[in-house]
Amino acid sequence: MRVVIVGSGAAGLTAASTVRKYDKEKEIIVITKERDIAYSPCAIPYVIEGTIKSFEDIIMHKPEDYKKRKNIDVLTETEVIDIDSRGNKVVLDNGEKIDYDYLVLSTGSTPFIPPIKGVNLDGVFTVKTIDDGRRILKYIEENNCKRAVIAGAGAIGLEMGYALKKRGLDVLIVEMAPQILPRFLDPDMAEIVQKYLESEGIRFILSKPLEMIIGDDKVKGVVVGGKEFDADIVILSTGVRPNIDLAKKAGCKVDKAIVVDEYMRTSIKNIYAAGDCVEVVDFITGEKTLSPFGSTAVRQGKVVGLNIVGKNVEFPPVLNSAVSKIGSLEIGGTGLTAFSANLKRIPIVIGKAKALTRARYYPGGKDIYVKLVFGEDMKILGCQIIGGERVAERIDLVSLAIYNGVKAEELCKMEHCYAPPVAMVNEPISLAAEEALNYFKNL
Amino acid sequence: MRVVIVGSGAAGLTAASTVRKYDKEKEIIVITKERDIAYSPCAIPYVIEGTIKSFEDIIMHKPEDYKKRKNIDVLTETEVIDIDSRGNKVVLDNGEKIDYDYLVLSTGSTPFIPPIKGVNLDGVFTVKTIDDGRRILKYIEENNCKRAVIAGAGAIGLEMGYALKKRGLDVLIVEMAPQILPRFLDPDMAEIVQKYLESEGIRFILSKPLEMIIGDDKVKGVVVGGKEFDADIVILSTGVRPNIDLAKKAGCKVDKAIVVDEYMRTSIKNIYAAGDCVEVVDFITGEKTLSPFGSTAVRQGKVVGLNIVGKNVEFPPVLNSAVSKIGSLEIGGTGLTAFSANLKRIPIVIGKAKALTRARYYPGGKDIYVKLVFGEDMKILGCQIIGGERVAERIDLVSLAIYNGVKAEELCKMEHCYAPPVAMVNEPISLAAEEALNYFKNL
Repeated sequence: MRVVIVGSGAAGLTAASTVRKYDKEKEIIVITKERDIAYSPCAIPYVIEGTIKSFEDIIMHKPEDYKKRKNIDVLTETEVIDIDSRGNKVVLDNGEKIDYDYLVLSTGSTPFIPPIKGVNLDGVFTVKTIDDGRRILKYIEENNCKRAVIAGAGAIGLEMGYALKKRGLDVLIVEMAPQILPRFLDPDMAEIVQKYLESEGIRFILSKPLEMIIGDDKVKGVVVGGKEFDADIVILSTGVRPNIDLAKKAGCKVDKAIVVDEYMRTSIKNIYAAGDCVEVVDFITGEKTLSPFGSTAVRQGKVVGLNIVGKNVEFPPVLNSAVSKIGSLEIGGTGLTAFSANLKRIPIVIGKAKALTRARYYPGGKDIYVKLVFGEDMKILGCQIIGGERVAERIDLVSLAIYNGVKAEELCKMEHCYAPPVAMVNEPISLAAEEALNYFKNL
Repeated sequence: MRVVIVGSGAAGLTAASTVRKYDKEKEIIVITKERDIAYSPCAIPYVIEGTIKSFEDIIMHKPEDYKKRKNIDVLTETEVIDIDSRGNKVVLDNGEKIDYDYLVLSTGSTPFIPPIKGVNLDGVFTVKTIDDGRRILKYIEENNCKRAVIAGAGAIGLEMGYALKKRGLDVLIVEMAPQILPRFLDPDMAEIVQKYLESEGIRFILSKPLEMIIGDDKVKGVVVGGKEFDADIVILSTGVRPNIDLAKKAGCKVDKAIVVDEYMRTSIKNIYAAGDCVEVVDFITGEKTLSPFGSTAVRQGKVVGLNIVGKNVEFPPVLNSAVSKIGSLEIGGTGLTAFSANLKRIPIVIGKAKALTRARYYPGGKDIYVKLVFGEDMKILGCQIIGGERVAERIDLVSLAIYNGVKAEELCKMEHCYAPPVAMVNEPISLAAEEALNYFKNL
């Protein structure tokens, strides 16, 4: 029995390791175009800013480690160019064919390149692979770059903007939406982040797209809102698109992304898919959506691996919980924002609180801002938190609350452990829930 | 209408503020024996260790602030010596009587003094009030203390031990149980904390009580297990007992502590009680228990306040979630330990994980140890976490999970937000839940 896995990202490698954890017999082959595997793309900005010393540090394992420690074969710098799903074979770029009993498509995603002039100039980069990171650093050093323009104020755009600023570059971030982090935060919360980044010297142009990149062979500037701005380097962080071509060639059903059932099976019985390349279900709306996050990829990879070894494990709908650390701010969100609720005409009740992460008198406490979104029945549907520390686990707590249909009153009363160095005696999530209840029925 | 509140701790002051928040008319009088109010006793060890500069810093409000900002009268250094619950009056130590419409008993608790020789010597202290803290610091300075003995290895004992060690004293902690933190952690988890504290130079004697304190007028030493140990100061941190005398005088039903219903009402209609002095219900066992924590006091004080203004709010059963920060370790727990499950003959399944608080390659990550306790049905019942950071919110997350009957499989699959500076891609709670499932049914 052989399992072939296309793609060596978080989904593919987790699927491989999970199969091996429960099955010592099956042959497992991971095939990847990349040279390096088992690194976290989310870490790239932190290498560029200098917090992590080198790109080598973020590589967790070498291909040979997988062979030695888990008896998993990893074929690097190898592309699967076709899939014969009737014959159960993948076709490699060298012409070789490999049979499989189970196939896992973890083909990931590709950065979206906006259809504007100049995107092919030297000095224009996306941030997806470790090689992208290496190229960016090399280009900055070789060209002594002074001015960076970032297109897109999502998490990666902001992280890259902060990283380049910390390296000493002048940074301008251009975002088409009228706010930063538009798919992640409501405008009132995004403003807190923007003010912080402006205080760090980063400039923003909102509500305008990047219209053009200027230069002969190398980037010299950009055009935004009809005006020219000098630039030595341009980073495009305008989202990703799922890689679905191979799935199409195999004959798998594809919509926005690869269609999978709750067991992460594609429309073809022995082909699974996981990671950025698949569609998932939104827990709140029930609609199909994407979830291009490392943590989703790992959770899906586990489900795929468990199902290949014969367990019957479902992957649940998602809230798309996410967190980012930018400078001294930790920014997290999960579930519905007020903005998206309004778009979808879902009636909501809001509760907000500003508090501290430690007792007021305990040194080192940081501001923390919590915004909760409740449905009309006062069930929690979403949460945004910005703070100097201790944000991520609070997001996870609210995610669990959303899955369990927890209401505002339970969040008000929830048990909360307290010690002055690590918490206030009032949990900020409870304070925000209280505020929502006051608004709603003056409890 | 007048509300009289006896005691100015977290429960009493929260009840007072909550009444005022929803009712601008009622007269509110808080009566307290103490001179200082609105401070967190949990902060005392951190002042003694020097992390917080002075005892004045931990006082959040002055009595006059309550008058000015909330129109709440606070009578300090005043003792209520009797209650005439038929006549709805409290009797003060100066003979004065004050009528009430509602009475709140938030009389707190008193440190337990073990019945041994020498507890009345100079240099023997308990740690409960801010004046205790001031006296301890003064005594150490005036007597140039070099050697401290702590009786009791609960959270306060360990925090005080670490604080005195940090001030340069030689510290010996004596605990009757065979482990430290006996009511909070299982032996395997307690060992991690003990090893850390030993590495900081603190010595322990376990499985033996403090038998005697030696000295003429001042402490000179202690006897433990028949042996003498030199000591210049002795701290007794051997638990607290609820203050129930006034409740008895009022005719309120009292068992282990003041008996209250789910609305925090005593057996007398217009008398409420909250904080260390009341009995609560254990969520797991349904038994009556105590919950002498600041966070419980605040949550109960809110419920009392809301019910006095005519809302109908219940205080839920407790898990007794708690957290402590000792040196570089954050230690938290909630719900059932394996030890207490075994005592109560509750069959359980354990899951443990050791992980890091950040991605392996991201600077500053700390070890984190998670132990989960599940029932036979794999519903989560308890949790213990020790780590260098980010423990408290994980405890709160598990508390919420326990209240909602969440099972191991949901914790395995739970959505978790990831970024290298703040988390690993695998949540340690999920890893521990996975381990529990492997053990149980080899999922």
